[in-house]
Amino acid sequence: MSSVDKQLEELKAEIETELPSDIVVSDVKYEGPELVVYTRNPKEFAQNGDLIRKLASKLRKRITVRPDPDVLTDPKKAREEVLDVIPDEANVTDLDFHADTGEVVIEAAKPGMVIGRHGSTLREITQQVGWTPEVVRTPPIESSTVSNVRNFLKQEREERRDILEKVGRQIHREQLSREQWVRISTLGCCREVGRASFILSTADTRILIDCGDKPGAEGEVPYLQVPEALGSGANSIDAVILTHAHLDHSALLPLLFKYGYDGPIYCTEPTRDLMGLLTLDYLDVAAKEGRTPPYESEMVREAIKHCIPLEYGDVTDIAPDVKLTFHNAGHILGSAVTHFHIGDGLYNVAFSGDIHYKDTRLFNGAVNDFPRVETLVMESTYGGRNDYQTDQEDSEEKLVEVINETADQGGKVLIPAFAVGRSQEIMLVLEQAMRSGKIPEMPVHLDGMIWEATAIHTTYPEYLRDELRDRIFHEDQNPFLAPQFNHIDGGEEERQEVADEGPCIILSTSGMVTGGPIMSWLRHLGPDPDSNLVFVGYQAQGTLGRRIQNGWDEIPVNDPNDRNSGRASTLSLKMGVETVDGFSGHADRNGLMNFVRTMNPRPEKVLCVHGDERSVQDLSSALYHEFNMRTFAPKNLETFRFK
Amino acid sequence: MSSVDKQLEELKAEIETELPSDIVVSDVKYEGPELVVYTRNPKEFAQNGDLIRKLASKLRKRITVRPDPDVLTDPKKAREEVLDVIPDEANVTDLDFHADTGEVVIEAAKPGMVIGRHGSTLREITQQVGWTPEVVRTPPIESSTVSNVRNFLKQEREERRDILEKVGRQIHREQLSREQWVRISTLGCCREVGRASFILSTADTRILIDCGDKPGAEGEVPYLQVPEALGSGANSIDAVILTHAHLDHSALLPLLFKYGYDGPIYCTEPTRDLMGLLTLDYLDVAAKEGRTPPYESEMVREAIKHCIPLEYGDVTDIAPDVKLTFHNAGHILGSAVTHFHIGDGLYNVAFSGDIHYKDTRLFNGAVNDFPRVETLVMESTYGGRNDYQTDQEDSEEKLVEVINETADQGGKVLIPAFAVGRSQEIMLVLEQAMRSGKIPEMPVHLDGMIWEATAIHTTYPEYLRDELRDRIFHEDQNPFLAPQFNHIDGGEEERQEVADEGPCIILSTSGMVTGGPIMSWLRHLGPDPDSNLVFVGYQAQGTLGRRIQNGWDEIPVNDPNDRNSGRASTLSLKMGVETVDGFSGHADRNGLMNFVRTMNPRPEKVLCVHGDERSVQDLSSALYHEFNMRTFAPKNLETFRFK
Repeated sequence: MSSVDKQLEELKAEIETELPSDIVVSDVKYEGPELVVYTRNPKEFAQNGDLIRKLASKLRKRITVRPDPDVLTDPKKAREEVLDVIPDEANVTDLDFHADTGEVVIEAAKPGMVIGRHGSTLREITQQVGWTPEVVRTPPIESSTVSNVRNFLKQEREERRDILEKVGRQIHREQLSREQWVRISTLGCCREVGRASFILSTADTRILIDCGDKPGAEGEVPYLQVPEALGSGANSIDAVILTHAHLDHSALLPLLFKYGYDGPIYCTEPTRDLMGLLTLDYLDVAAKEGRTPPYESEMVREAIKHCIPLEYGDVTDIAPDVKLTFHNAGHILGSAVTHFHIGDGLYNVAFSGDIHYKDTRLFNGAVNDFPRVETLVMESTYGGRNDYQTDQEDSEEKLVEVINETADQGGKVLIPAFAVGRSQEIMLVLEQAMRSGKIPEMPVHLDGMIWEATAIHTTYPEYLRDELRDRIFHEDQNPFLAPQFNHIDGGEEERQEVADEGPCIILSTSGMVTGGPIMSWLRHLGPDPDSNLVFVGYQAQGTLGRRIQNGWDEIPVNDPNDRNSGRASTLSLKMGVETVDGFSGHADRNGLMNFVRTMNPRPEKVLCVHGDERSVQDLSSALYHEFNMRTFAPKNLETFRFK
Repeated sequence: MSSVDKQLEELKAEIETELPSDIVVSDVKYEGPELVVYTRNPKEFAQNGDLIRKLASKLRKRITVRPDPDVLTDPKKAREEVLDVIPDEANVTDLDFHADTGEVVIEAAKPGMVIGRHGSTLREITQQVGWTPEVVRTPPIESSTVSNVRNFLKQEREERRDILEKVGRQIHREQLSREQWVRISTLGCCREVGRASFILSTADTRILIDCGDKPGAEGEVPYLQVPEALGSGANSIDAVILTHAHLDHSALLPLLFKYGYDGPIYCTEPTRDLMGLLTLDYLDVAAKEGRTPPYESEMVREAIKHCIPLEYGDVTDIAPDVKLTFHNAGHILGSAVTHFHIGDGLYNVAFSGDIHYKDTRLFNGAVNDFPRVETLVMESTYGGRNDYQTDQEDSEEKLVEVINETADQGGKVLIPAFAVGRSQEIMLVLEQAMRSGKIPEMPVHLDGMIWEATAIHTTYPEYLRDELRDRIFHEDQNPFLAPQFNHIDGGEEERQEVADEGPCIILSTSGMVTGGPIMSWLRHLGPDPDSNLVFVGYQAQGTLGRRIQNGWDEIPVNDPNDRNSGRASTLSLKMGVETVDGFSGHADRNGLMNFVRTMNPRPEKVLCVHGDERSVQDLSSALYHEFNMRTFAPKNLETFRFK
């Protein structure tokens, strides 16, 4: 008998002694990090509301209880009973019974009403029908990404259970090594921005953290080929962590599955969905630009299939000697500061991922409070000695001014913006400004992936800033649903209509004017001296956005009616060009220093990564001098040992 | 056609254009780092003495010319002719004709007489018979190790040619990576003494440097299991370098072949032979102590079979992007400072290995002169701030005093000594002291492996100190052949005889009194208050030697006549105990600092390794402060990137 089977048998015996004698346990299994308890008496289990919590704390495991398939009520009858229990205001949009696991997935506009106070409604459901309910939110704005992911996972349910069971056994395997060490190897994003990738390794376990591309440098990918990465086979990695969905952290993750990896990816639920959206778009852009993408869309599906979503604050076993906890990072939806507890008190490492230190309209500021941390791996994008950003309050005022001026002269405001993060922040600024009368009510058109990304944001209000979440939850005042927001889904025709109408605001991708519908908007509005092009995000070297900022007024455009001619014509830019700083998703130099200053506990060592040479050196030196800690500015392909 | 075959074809064409038209090249092959040119006209080739040198410099390759097997003279006839050409004084002891390669191996007491001035006699041989001569020295003292190795290699000749051809093709393979980097990973001997092992890696090539055990800590072996070592398979290593034969650098090298490695080991010829001697003894000791050795003697033979001996100063291609050069390290016979030139001028790394900075009687001081060096990996055994040794001159005087006193009172001098290195140094001191009358002529008995190790030293006089080598070569005054040296080969009986006779000196293993014949000598001489036990080498914590130094006078001994009783009796030590420092094989703190001070060029970075925590930290800090270079005291399992 394997050590895991022995372990499960012992757990079953222990559970049986803990439970009242009328509750029969038929099986006990691992699924991913969870322990699943199958019972012949699901209703009795549910009657005793405290039982699962007590078991979980006794066994120090995350526990799910499911009915033995033999004792399941008929789904047709159960459906009626479930709908009877749930209040109508919950607005159930889908009910899905899975006889293989005894689960019923309930999709509802108001999941809180399905759950009830402290889960009372959920327990009532089980007491009535015996099935185990699982609740998901109906996206308030229809999201093809969310529904595609959900349908795909439903369809792959059986394979996914196999995956989860395998991962579960892997996590709970016997710890074999007598040695103890903790190491970090750098595979990318050291002394550069992009291709984030690290290996965290112990004598028993190897974990890959992020696997991104490098924007503006197609060939520069993480060093996966070296022995300490995948050199000893893709499955020498035990687990993959994705800190957030941006492509410089996620783009090459599906590639792992092409290389044969078949283990878990831990991330938050919104990160999973956004990763799906962004990597598919990455393939799309590559195809449009005539490049051969490194993997096919099938591999994105594999990645999604292997995602194990975790919530902020969940302490999760991901290996015999590693516990993982995600915390809010404030950078984009679902972005996580990632904490690893290694061994039984041996060592603790936190990876900041990309962070925003202060609260923004969208998100709470990054969490920097941990039970223990000895080493921090820290982003340094704005770590340079002069990398201070304007306060967002001032930036908002400047944006309001520009909009008012433009409206006064009858023009339109065109804002190039990244689909994920900055667009939603600007939407909140605009909604608030209109609600408070600082700018006149006018249409705000959203073009490119912005609408879809916004829909994903509204699906996961738990990941948004407290106040925003509360507005959505309790006051039913979801600002993203404000009537002035319009999704451009009518293509060139609709754009022409918008261009022909009066003052409005247009948010469009791509954020650095390197392609996408923004190009079309420039053709429409570029010749209009009354309109304004407003940059609200970082424009990288070599992008058209940066060139326009630098004063270019002749820009190359392709005539959409003459796509195949290959002739690039130029457009004379007559519209105004403005830059409004201060809406970055990254902490500035102050924010980074404050993150460490107020961090609890203060780490002993900091590795400064994810910044250009100057930024990591400056930040490393500043942290050393101010806090007298050991700081490093690693190169790619180095390995640091901590224990 | 493979890229190597194409390369060989081009080389053949180039050679043909360089050669006079009467010389026909039948084939061109790589064997290890050498290019072998087969010709139908070996005699004509030999007539033009400069031809090979010119070709080598033109092609930038090491070149060997061999006759096409078709044109070989009959060996019987050739034997006579060869012996005719060689002067009688050369004293040829063996002639071995190998028809497969057209080589004749000539073993002679005076190889110089076989070679002739600038190789003139060798060329004459080829002109006469067409065969390619190879010369080896007849050991002046019979050495079973040397003759075993030679016989074994003769017997495995065919397989060895296959190995060399494979290695040759491997070395000259196409360089595939577009990336350029240089890294060192530490697998052992960081912040500790023992288990020396490093990986030097580039994007194309991975080289293992040393693979030793840790004396006094049986379980602590190099971290071979991590991915950056053998995690991606033993053959992910392209080459192995052995800096010298001591077990803390060599003991686990045969293990690589058990793991499936079948590539080359580069070392000097004496290192190869001493490695054979010491690893076989290592297995022997393990068996005697009832431990299971990690590999069998078969693996030692595999290791020897895969050795490619290089001489000091030979610049040798060992990979498409790495050139290796060994230099004298002054530590033990064949020990090497190892220089790597990486890429075409990309980077240079030197590994000091174990070094002695000053000249000793046995060896010249370590070489520290290189064309270029950016990073030095430096031993730090005596790197601590107070690790200064007595001058050898003073030590010798003290030793002379002790010997004279002991002889005066009619006692014997018993010196525990390591078989390799220290014993020979002491032999030279004694021979000189007797020759100059500082001590009376008396027998010097050599017990344990000392005699065999000395025999190996006399086989390779080229590796000894200039003056010593010259004495052996030119004046025929090999001090190791002095008549007072006696090999104890008669076991207990002979020891009893020696004990019963008058004053003498006994050198015996083990050097730290942890076993071996020294135990028997203690039984014989321990009760004699007129005799003296003299320590001349480092006594490690926990050894009996250290305990005696610290004043123990009751020591455990086993009665040799009662081996199986298991009863350990104790012996009351009445003989005197003296310690004479200053004969170490390692540079002291001064020597280490001077090695760097006078190094040409001064490296930019130094990694201080092979020393306990305090020693590496002290040396690292001293080098930083004195020379303002970047210095490190790495931990095991770290990776440093230099380019």
